[in-house]
This record gives sequence, structure tokens and C-alpha cells, in this order.
Amino acid sequence: MQNVNHLEQLDRLSGLLATVSRDAAGTIRRVSVALLDVDPVGARAVLAEVKDRAATHRQIDELVPLTLVRQQPVASDLRLVLAGLRMNTELHRMDVLAGHIAKLVVARHPAQVVPPPVRPLIGAMAETTVRIADKSALCLATRDRIDALQLGLDDDELDVQYQRLFGILTDAWPYGVQAAIDVAMLGRYYERFADHAVNVARRVAYLVGGDLTRGVI
Amino acid sequence: MQNVNHLEQLDRLSGLLATVSRDAAGTIRRVSVALLDVDPVGARAVLAEVKDRAATHRQIDELVPLTLVRQQPVASDLRLVLAGLRMNTELHRMDVLAGHIAKLVVARHPAQVVPPPVRPLIGAMAETTVRIADKSALCLATRDRIDALQLGLDDDELDVQYQRLFGILTDAWPYGVQAAIDVAMLGRYYERFADHAVNVARRVAYLVGGDLTRGVI
Repeated sequence: MQNVNHLEQLDRLSGLLATVSRDAAGTIRRVSVALLDVDPVGARAVLAEVKDRAATHRQIDELVPLTLVRQQPVASDLRLVLAGLRMNTELHRMDVLAGHIAKLVVARHPAQVVPPPVRPLIGAMAETTVRIADKSALCLATRDRIDALQLGLDDDELDVQYQRLFGILTDAWPYGVQAAIDVAMLGRYYERFADHAVNVARRVAYLVGGDLTRGVI
Repeated sequence: MQNVNHLEQLDRLSGLLATVSRDAAGTIRRVSVALLDVDPVGARAVLAEVKDRAATHRQIDELVPLTLVRQQPVASDLRLVLAGLRMNTELHRMDVLAGHIAKLVVARHPAQVVPPPVRPLIGAMAETTVRIADKSALCLATRDRIDALQLGLDDDELDVQYQRLFGILTDAWPYGVQAAIDVAMLGRYYERFADHAVNVARRVAYLVGGDLTRGVI
């Protein structure tokens, strides 16, 4: 009976993490659509869903010490629980960053945050970030270590896009300082969101016994 | 004997966290001096110390599961260990953010990152952040819950300074887009650094039994 409960609690933790991870991927997709469509209603919906999800993040936080005390897990189960605590922090930060993008859309409306010359690049950064978030959520659901490795390549692509963005902003930019700062911050939000998603996937790799944890603090 | 080891491991964890926290406060002070003095040598020294400290962060990370397995702590000891894991993540991010400031100093040299009109404000933000970092480190060393509450007020002050910074940047800024983005990013690095330091102090408050954990994920 003790063993059955043990599995149930760990399964619950894994299930909740897989859910918030899939939801975070959906959120970054929706906020990117709201950003490029200049849609404050969509942006406000994102802020609401992020706010709602904070309750699930707290639930995961509370499940961790409970599981440790009740089950005293060791070996791979203990690693799962500890990684879960930290993945939860990363997933929460992803929500906060998506919320920053949504707030920019709302604050600048009816003006657009993304002027025409950087629209294709911001669109590409959003696509790369959504792809990273989708793969990271899949890693959590399937515990597939290979996907975790491939994610590093997607993240390199995003870094290149981020650098190109600064090139455009600092070379004869005609939209003023405010727009430049907004776009630079947008770029940073996407880049940080993706970093967290990659970290989540790396923690999955750690769970399945890889040595990809180096540098992931 | 078991009990003695127990205390020793928890004390070691607390000791290491207090050390990296005090060191992070020293780092943000030194990188701020390098920034305002346009000193790439000082900035490079900061990058080196941050790199060295990563080993201690890894050591803390490894100490956590070891302590859980060997001692199976409960109640306040368990909370200390779990909070320690997450404080370590925050303290590592603080180092990374200080490193971002150092890299800006190195990248722009011999030019200055901070043009004259925002020098007093960036100096004030640096001062507020150093004060927050010092208090947060003191919270960790003394487990003083009151200090954790006072930190919220310092953080509010930093938020006001951060908003004033955007006001200056977007109102007839004569230094170009590159400098504006640099200064905006600087502001964000200080603001994020301070947020992490405040979170560390809030986790200390959680350890001493307060209910300040709400919203701290």
C-alpha cells in the first residue's frame, strides 16, 4: 500500500509538471499571435491564464516536501522530486516572461510593439521559441533524452536570431528609442523563455541518467 | 553520531549559502564600480570570480540530495534543505546577471556604457541593489525575518528608479539607440539581480516560519 501511494504521488508530480509545461508552450504561442496581430484582448487572456496557473505552480511546490516526508524516496525517485522542484521554478518564470510580452502588447495598444522591419525576425524568434517550448514539454511527457540534446541546436538558432535583432536595432533604426527598447526587451524575453525551456529539458535528461546537468544550476 | 553528522551537513549547507550570498553582494558592488569607472580590468576580474564561484554552486547542488538521503530530515530541517536548493538557483542567477554587466563594460570599452545624464540614476540603482544584496546576505547569515520584510521597501525604491530610467531614455535621448538599449538592459539586470536577492531573503523568512512564501516560486 505504501508503495502504491508512493507511485501515485510521484505520478501526480510528473503529471502536473507535464501539464504546466504543455500549458506554458500554449501560452508562448498565444502571446506571440497577440503580439503580431496587435491584439490586446488576446494579450489580456494570456495574462489571465498565467495568473490562474500560479495556483498549480504552488500546488507542485507543496507536493515536493510532502512527497519527501511521506515517501522518503531514494535514487531516481529522489532525483525526480528534486528536479521537479526546480523545473517548477523554471516553468513559473516562463509564464512570467510570457506575461511581460502580453503586458507590452496591452501597454502600447493601439500602437504596435513590433515595427515592420523587425516583424519577420520577431516572428521567427517566436516560432523558434514555441518549437523549443513544445519539444521541452514533449521531453517532460516522454522523458526522451535525445530531444533534450536537439533542443540545444534550436537554442543556438534563437541566439543567432537575437544577435541579428540587435544588428537591425542599432543600424539606422527610424522608429525611435522607445520602440527599440521595447523590441530589445521582447528579444530578451523570448531568449530567457527558451533558456528556461531548455533547462527543463536538460533536467529531464538528468532524470534519465545523462550527464547533461553540468552548468544547469 | 548520526545526529552530529546531520547537524554538520546542514551547517555546511547553511555556511556555503551564506558565503555565496555574501560573495554575490561583493560582486555586484565591484561590477558597479567597474561600470561607473569604465574599468575593463575590474570587469574581467568580476567575470573570473563569477566563473570560479560556479564550482561552489555545484557543490551546494550536490550537497542537497546527499543530505536528504543520508539524514532524511523532516520539518524545519527539510525546509532548510529544499529552500537551500532554490536559493542556490537564485544566487547563481545573481552571479550571471552581474556577469552580464561586466561583459557590457568589456564590450563597449574604451567607450562608457553609462552616458552622463543617467550616471547619477544608474549609480543610485547600483547603490540600492548593493544594499538589497547586503541585507539579503545578512538575512541568510542571521535568519532575521524583519530584515526580509524591510527588503521589500528597498525593492520598491529600485522599481521607482527603474521606471525613472525609462523616462530619461525615451525623452529626447541624444546618445543613440545602442546606448539606450545598453542602459535599459543594465537597468533590467540590476532589477532582476535585486529580485533574486529579495527572493532569497523571503525564503529565509519561510525558514523561520513566516508566511512570506506566497508568490515566491
